[in-house]
Amino acid sequence: MRDVAVIGVGMTKWGELWEKSLRTIFDETALLAIEDAGVERIDSMVVGCMSSGLFVGQEHLASLLADSLGRIPIPAARVESACSSGGLALRQGFIEVASGLSDVVLVAGVEKMTDVTGCEATYALGTAADQEYEGYHGLTFPGLYAMMAVAHMHQYGTTREQLARVAVKNHENGSKNPLAQFPFKVTVDAVVNSVLVADPLRILDCSPITDGAAAVVLCPLDLARKTGKPFVRIAGTGQATDTIALSSRKDLTWLESTRVAAQKALAMAGRKIDDIHLFEVHDCFTIAEIMITEALGLVGKGRGGPAVEEGLTSMGGKYPVNPSGGLKAKGHPVGATGVAQAVEAVKQLRGEAGERQVKGAKRALTQNMGGTGGSSVVHVFEAE
Amino acid sequence: MRDVAVIGVGMTKWGELWEKSLRTIFDETALLAIEDAGVERIDSMVVGCMSSGLFVGQEHLASLLADSLGRIPIPAARVESACSSGGLALRQGFIEVASGLSDVVLVAGVEKMTDVTGCEATYALGTAADQEYEGYHGLTFPGLYAMMAVAHMHQYGTTREQLARVAVKNHENGSKNPLAQFPFKVTVDAVVNSVLVADPLRILDCSPITDGAAAVVLCPLDLARKTGKPFVRIAGTGQATDTIALSSRKDLTWLESTRVAAQKALAMAGRKIDDIHLFEVHDCFTIAEIMITEALGLVGKGRGGPAVEEGLTSMGGKYPVNPSGGLKAKGHPVGATGVAQAVEAVKQLRGEAGERQVKGAKRALTQNMGGTGGSSVVHVFEAE
Repeated sequence: MRDVAVIGVGMTKWGELWEKSLRTIFDETALLAIEDAGVERIDSMVVGCMSSGLFVGQEHLASLLADSLGRIPIPAARVESACSSGGLALRQGFIEVASGLSDVVLVAGVEKMTDVTGCEATYALGTAADQEYEGYHGLTFPGLYAMMAVAHMHQYGTTREQLARVAVKNHENGSKNPLAQFPFKVTVDAVVNSVLVADPLRILDCSPITDGAAAVVLCPLDLARKTGKPFVRIAGTGQATDTIALSSRKDLTWLESTRVAAQKALAMAGRKIDDIHLFEVHDCFTIAEIMITEALGLVGKGRGGPAVEEGLTSMGGKYPVNPSGGLKAKGHPVGATGVAQAVEAVKQLRGEAGERQVKGAKRALTQNMGGTGGSSVVHVFEAE
Repeated sequence: MRDVAVIGVGMTKWGELWEKSLRTIFDETALLAIEDAGVERIDSMVVGCMSSGLFVGQEHLASLLADSLGRIPIPAARVESACSSGGLALRQGFIEVASGLSDVVLVAGVEKMTDVTGCEATYALGTAADQEYEGYHGLTFPGLYAMMAVAHMHQYGTTREQLARVAVKNHENGSKNPLAQFPFKVTVDAVVNSVLVADPLRILDCSPITDGAAAVVLCPLDLARKTGKPFVRIAGTGQATDTIALSSRKDLTWLESTRVAAQKALAMAGRKIDDIHLFEVHDCFTIAEIMITEALGLVGKGRGGPAVEEGLTSMGGKYPVNPSGGLKAKGHPVGATGVAQAVEAVKQLRGEAGERQVKGAKRALTQNMGGTGGSSVVHVFEAE
């Protein structure tokens, strides 16, 4: 297997982009990444998107976007793994470059979730749950994560305030990210008094509905060295699955797919969790980030709540989690999220993260998750 | 890149499987392929499916199926390229084994299109066209292919009877395939007098709506040799894109993505088209097969009609096309079709195709297509 580097990244402002179609959002973002990479040639494209079929009535997406970008007849693949579609796209792009089949691969994630005619966003997102065992009974994701939160509070004494602390931290970080959908701070009081969505989760515990895209350009390490430009190596990739129905899990409070994916990615990179300087993780709900810090091994089982309260995962803490603002503040265009995590990792390792820079960061880990953890994709990035 | 072999194949009876859900259809088929391969271990899964989101309200499909098959926590990726999703899955599985990341990869294609609650099949299939440039104006696939047929008839004098000859040939072949949805013969008269769908295409020019799955097991060539069982090598893979909107094409009668994909796959295999002993191609409509034989270079531009009339593409002809019965007789569960083509290629090259065996076949080519040719995936298989 060849070593793989990221030589270009691109991301545009996320939000409710009423005036932009899916292909426009993709094009603008992909062009930024290609410009950043400074390459003319693109051999192949991989696009992560959860549900353009339901959101905008468009499948056959990768060909459409290859055409829109003016790149036909290059090969173009769309991959889907619910909200970890972006992470999966990065992994497939990595494999394609590693294999030697393609040299320069554009990896993008995109989702158009607002101003759509296809169907209601909550229904479309609900198709990441088990339709026969969960969706059929009316369960949607706020409800599923609320059950996980209640179980975590019951089992480990996690408090309502600790959940809020995740939102406060991520909005603090996101307030320094000009591309974030909600680049402002929130207080614990604001979170715990915000509108109830699914007890105990309130609106400020939830990541938003977002239009957006993110893109990176990959190539073999030796080619990256020849460019003379800064680049970042993908040192490890790991992916794992779990039951997508919560009812089939042994433990509602544990994300086994994240544990397995992280162990694989770290093993491939030859690193331990303490070697990592920053983490971009899948905080689709505040409880998710608490459970992810446990599954990654940043803290012991059940200790995610106290950890965020004590500042362990804040900027300046031992394990900075979500310097970008995370899904909570940055937004969550589901197919784009995993690629955006890679964009942040690369910016941090190139020292270009501005006000939210983790000083001296040389190694980063991204964790992208589908559903309630039915799939997880983890990557380890290292500065060269 | 490592050489890659197919060591197991599986396919179940296709049709309107009212009593079986998507996961049941997948499980039964995947288990056949695993049993055929004689392996215990599966390192990873790739699933091709066009639109489980629209058909059955289920995204996050690969994780669901990994769980259903009892294989969590292995990595599982779903890929989509409209009706070439199956071919794309095979290609991604090939790349994963070639890269060295995984040794034993299960590749499956599946689609549940009948007895569904999500939406109407014609709407779901229509999302393989350009939603903004085609779907919005009411175009569906019979209409798009009808325009291609009219253009081909006008430009090259292709006749109504020549179109019918494709259906007659493929049903003749399909009558010998017990797994086909419609394993019976049809006559030219029956085709040209069948119900009009979109002039000049009649119902017997169209592939059907089908529930079904197909699966193959891939591994490195050296591992395949150690099993002591028959196997087939994937000698070449090619994928290409084109504009998905017909209105953006230079020529309505030419499938450029098929030409490019075939050239790439043949070049990788170090073969010419005349080295191939049988072809499984994407006859979603009779006109499609005529255009594909031209794009593959079996005949000159505009000569596809006379070729089928003269028996060039019949069993016993110079270029046997669709010995399995093709999409026309076998059925077309869109995400499964590309993998089913590989299943037929492998059965033929192992000499296990029964009554429809192409005698002495050592090399086969599969061509799987999305939309009206917005994407094409071609593979070359060789017996060892």
